[in-house]
Amino acid sequence: MDPKRYLPILQWLPGYGRATLGSDLLAAVIVTIMLIPQSLAYAMLAGLPPEVGLYASIAPLVVYAVFGTSRTLAVGPVAVVSLMTAAAVGQLAPQGSPEYLGAALVLALMSGLILTLMGAARLGFLANFLSHPVISGFITATGLIIAAGQLKHVLGVEAAGHNLVELGASLATSLGGVNAPTLVIGVGVLAFLYAARRWLKGGLVKLGVPARPADMLTKAAPILAVAMTTLATWWLGLDELGVAVVGEVPAGLPPLTLPGFDSGLWSQLFVAALLISVIGFVESVSVGQTLAAKRRQRIDPDQELVGLGTSNIAASFTGGMPVTGGFARSVVNFDAGAETPAAGAFTAVGIAAAALLLTPLIAYLPIATLAATIIVAVLSLVDIAAIKRTWAYSRCDAAAMLATILVTLGHGVESGILAGVTLSLALHLYYTSRPHSAVVGRVPGTEHFRNVQRHAVETDERLAILRVDESLYFANARYLEDTVMALATRQPSLEHIVLACQAVNVIDASALESLEVINARLKDAGVTMHLAEVKGPVMDRLYNTDFCRELTGQVYLSTYDAWQTLHGDGGERGTVCGKSVDRPASA
Amino acid sequence: MDPKRYLPILQWLPGYGRATLGSDLLAAVIVTIMLIPQSLAYAMLAGLPPEVGLYASIAPLVVYAVFGTSRTLAVGPVAVVSLMTAAAVGQLAPQGSPEYLGAALVLALMSGLILTLMGAARLGFLANFLSHPVISGFITATGLIIAAGQLKHVLGVEAAGHNLVELGASLATSLGGVNAPTLVIGVGVLAFLYAARRWLKGGLVKLGVPARPADMLTKAAPILAVAMTTLATWWLGLDELGVAVVGEVPAGLPPLTLPGFDSGLWSQLFVAALLISVIGFVESVSVGQTLAAKRRQRIDPDQELVGLGTSNIAASFTGGMPVTGGFARSVVNFDAGAETPAAGAFTAVGIAAAALLLTPLIAYLPIATLAATIIVAVLSLVDIAAIKRTWAYSRCDAAAMLATILVTLGHGVESGILAGVTLSLALHLYYTSRPHSAVVGRVPGTEHFRNVQRHAVETDERLAILRVDESLYFANARYLEDTVMALATRQPSLEHIVLACQAVNVIDASALESLEVINARLKDAGVTMHLAEVKGPVMDRLYNTDFCRELTGQVYLSTYDAWQTLHGDGGERGTVCGKSVDRPASA
Repeated sequence: MDPKRYLPILQWLPGYGRATLGSDLLAAVIVTIMLIPQSLAYAMLAGLPPEVGLYASIAPLVVYAVFGTSRTLAVGPVAVVSLMTAAAVGQLAPQGSPEYLGAALVLALMSGLILTLMGAARLGFLANFLSHPVISGFITATGLIIAAGQLKHVLGVEAAGHNLVELGASLATSLGGVNAPTLVIGVGVLAFLYAARRWLKGGLVKLGVPARPADMLTKAAPILAVAMTTLATWWLGLDELGVAVVGEVPAGLPPLTLPGFDSGLWSQLFVAALLISVIGFVESVSVGQTLAAKRRQRIDPDQELVGLGTSNIAASFTGGMPVTGGFARSVVNFDAGAETPAAGAFTAVGIAAAALLLTPLIAYLPIATLAATIIVAVLSLVDIAAIKRTWAYSRCDAAAMLATILVTLGHGVESGILAGVTLSLALHLYYTSRPHSAVVGRVPGTEHFRNVQRHAVETDERLAILRVDESLYFANARYLEDTVMALATRQPSLEHIVLACQAVNVIDASALESLEVINARLKDAGVTMHLAEVKGPVMDRLYNTDFCRELTGQVYLSTYDAWQTLHGDGGERGTVCGKSVDRPASA
Repeated sequence: MDPKRYLPILQWLPGYGRATLGSDLLAAVIVTIMLIPQSLAYAMLAGLPPEVGLYASIAPLVVYAVFGTSRTLAVGPVAVVSLMTAAAVGQLAPQGSPEYLGAALVLALMSGLILTLMGAARLGFLANFLSHPVISGFITATGLIIAAGQLKHVLGVEAAGHNLVELGASLATSLGGVNAPTLVIGVGVLAFLYAARRWLKGGLVKLGVPARPADMLTKAAPILAVAMTTLATWWLGLDELGVAVVGEVPAGLPPLTLPGFDSGLWSQLFVAALLISVIGFVESVSVGQTLAAKRRQRIDPDQELVGLGTSNIAASFTGGMPVTGGFARSVVNFDAGAETPAAGAFTAVGIAAAALLLTPLIAYLPIATLAATIIVAVLSLVDIAAIKRTWAYSRCDAAAMLATILVTLGHGVESGILAGVTLSLALHLYYTSRPHSAVVGRVPGTEHFRNVQRHAVETDERLAILRVDESLYFANARYLEDTVMALATRQPSLEHIVLACQAVNVIDASALESLEVINARLKDAGVTMHLAEVKGPVMDRLYNTDFCRELTGQVYLSTYDAWQTLHGDGGERGTVCGKSVDRPASA
């Protein structure tokens, strides 16, 4: 057991030097500036007090620096996980109640335990249940729900709902009560942030600012919006005109909290915790891998589970909420030059300082400003073009994606993700349950065998060679039975069937039983069954099985051996069939 | 649309002649004699009055003759489905109540609708979710539960429970009240039936009876046991000594019944109906296919769904219960010479005659006799050797099998089957999420490429050729990312990576995205990515994708083309590595 594997901090801390320190510190300052408004906003999105977002950006970052394998991943509250938190906890307790806060802590703890256990049991592969189209559809749908949900803060009205239908209906009935100053702030910040995204960097570059600092300044636009609108609200007394503000935020370091151990609550939150864990992990690991690849570094997905899991456990004991690696801030961290996870630990120090010193200043921060920040952030995740692209490439993947989007929008996040996973699994099984196979014949004069329907090849009416193009397992075992028996029924002169197995990597117990059944049925029908080109590991397992003992025919090393033995012994020379004669062998 | 496909009766009825009629009539008589005690016993097993078993063996058989595709399948109540019926209905109503009877009718109707709709939508592939080890484990476990559940009737005591633990505890507490005459009948019938199975056929053959009639007589042993114990009970007045008897059974044809349409009941029974449908279908279709193959006939699984579905619908409107194709009686039907489904229709006439005329005679039939019949029948389904065989062949399949057995025994039939399906799917995804791939090198002097770890091959430190041995889809897309990036990280001199795709039949949208990611990451790392041996249909879909436009390298027709271009241009001639030098190419 290599301690460096389980404590990745040992890989970089011993060689930590002054140059690295400088890069990491600079990155930490920039990420801190970006993370302050984000963590306030995402806490609000989760229905939690703003300081919870700050708390969730302190201890988890330090813990991730110890256990995480990405050098540049920036951990903390993220939009999608915050929405999932709100959806899960909102069903159990009213917002603002101590039970709501407690349930969020339990959710972070359960998610942390699930991730850590998955990592310890090396179950990272479970994330593979989520196909790309399902994830992409889910992110798009949650982006739309989040944006719609924040509209009420921009308009200064009341509305509620966990899916687009509920939200839309609720917003429509309350449009009469729009608060004008709130609307001005909200729309103003939205316009400012969009303008900054589109033109600020280009403008700064034109003014002679180098590209990287210009980029960094653009990323700092949200903090500028926060500062300006807070100042304006305080100066003009806008809160007395009905502009909702964050209000008093307690100053201080994160409290020590003990999540509850109520078994009823735990079982109610289990599915949500599992989904939050998997979604958070998939998003985080894909960001981490993308950034690592740019520097030819590596991520260990199973250790990443431990890194994210311990971070969430840390969050649950320090008044936080579920966290994971965020896309935008990790890219900023990377671009700003972070070289080791120490940058994350320094960011934690920055956020801790903010929690101690800056909280009195944000009492006048308008909620509409935070809502506008969220809207701009999540709408950049909405990828409508991906639907078109996926549709063009594969109807099947597009169906899974659309199901995810529609169910998420219409029924909520948990149903949406479960519908997508179920449908993509069912479609996958549907397709692999009909594996590709081809009756092949001999390319005249060679030892090569090709599909009789595509090529001009020699065949023999007493002999059929079936090339199986997939591993054989329970989902396609019965289809193989059908295919072989159809062949035997169609060709009454048949005496031998050869299964050419060059593409068969595995034969599971179901497929083995199907092969036994096929062998027995062919025997009843007077046809001998042979195998050819069976791979070494597959053959090793077939020895000593009933199938091997009862096989009516032989196992040939190559298809050509089978052909020579079964066709060559004085029979007719076969017939030439197939469509094209000019190009006998290519595909 | 071919009417013969949707009404298989049109395939054989027009040519029906006198010779076929004779064979079918003989088979029908033999199956009727076998089916009478079976249908009474399986109705009792399902917790229903005995006549329901007879009713379920009339209309469904006629309907199957019209819509079914097997020539010899004998439809009716079967043990496993009866147990599942009892488990599902028993949770909703007390045995003997009108609600219990009504729920059984609803279950038959729902199961019929599910099967018919699956057939119409050609969803027969869904049965592939059930792997052989899961089915085999499930049948073994239900056999044990059924046998344990019938013990109380053999002992003449009261006991209840839906799993082995409950049943065992219940039996243990009631052993004091064993009824001696019941025990004598029960154990006597058990001994007689076992003796008949083991020695009767051999004995008859020794006495000069030909093998086939001897076999038929052996199969008729249950009806002999029924007749003898009924007679003995009536003669000796055993019912007054505490021997439980069937009691008055109404004589007459099946009543017309209308299943209820209570939406609450329907949703409570849905999962049970789905599982009964799938289990019944899988068992039935595998019997049907085995028998069909013996005569080189074919079964159309999708039309079989319709055949079984309409049979169940017929059962629900004629006072019946869920039915499917039974193993033992179908074999008897086949062996007795049935040639068309008309034999099933004639059997229905036989059972109808029994329902009209024989019911007064079975009032004194001891329940213990029926219980003994069931025990002998289901214990022949218990296959402990299969566990050992599966364990020896594949730990993974054995795990799914054991999970199914243990959860079924300990928690009930529905949980058992769901646990087995979930585990086998998860294990399958686990294994396919780590697809086999190999870095290959050139067999010196040839155009062949082999695994560098197994063969003495030429390689090039600037070029890595990765042969991918599986289709690429969501479950293994991320693993491919890991594999390729590990290769790039491990070999810093690398300039080109070639993915050799001869075994890739499909690239789904997730895998396409992973290929894009791999291409982008390799580009960041200064490595060019190429493809080779991409199959025609796969390449067709790759054209016009972003991946194809952004691919940093080329697509080569063959691995050798890639090798010549990337290695041949004046570089070093490569090194010879690998373990064995004597046998360069075989696997």
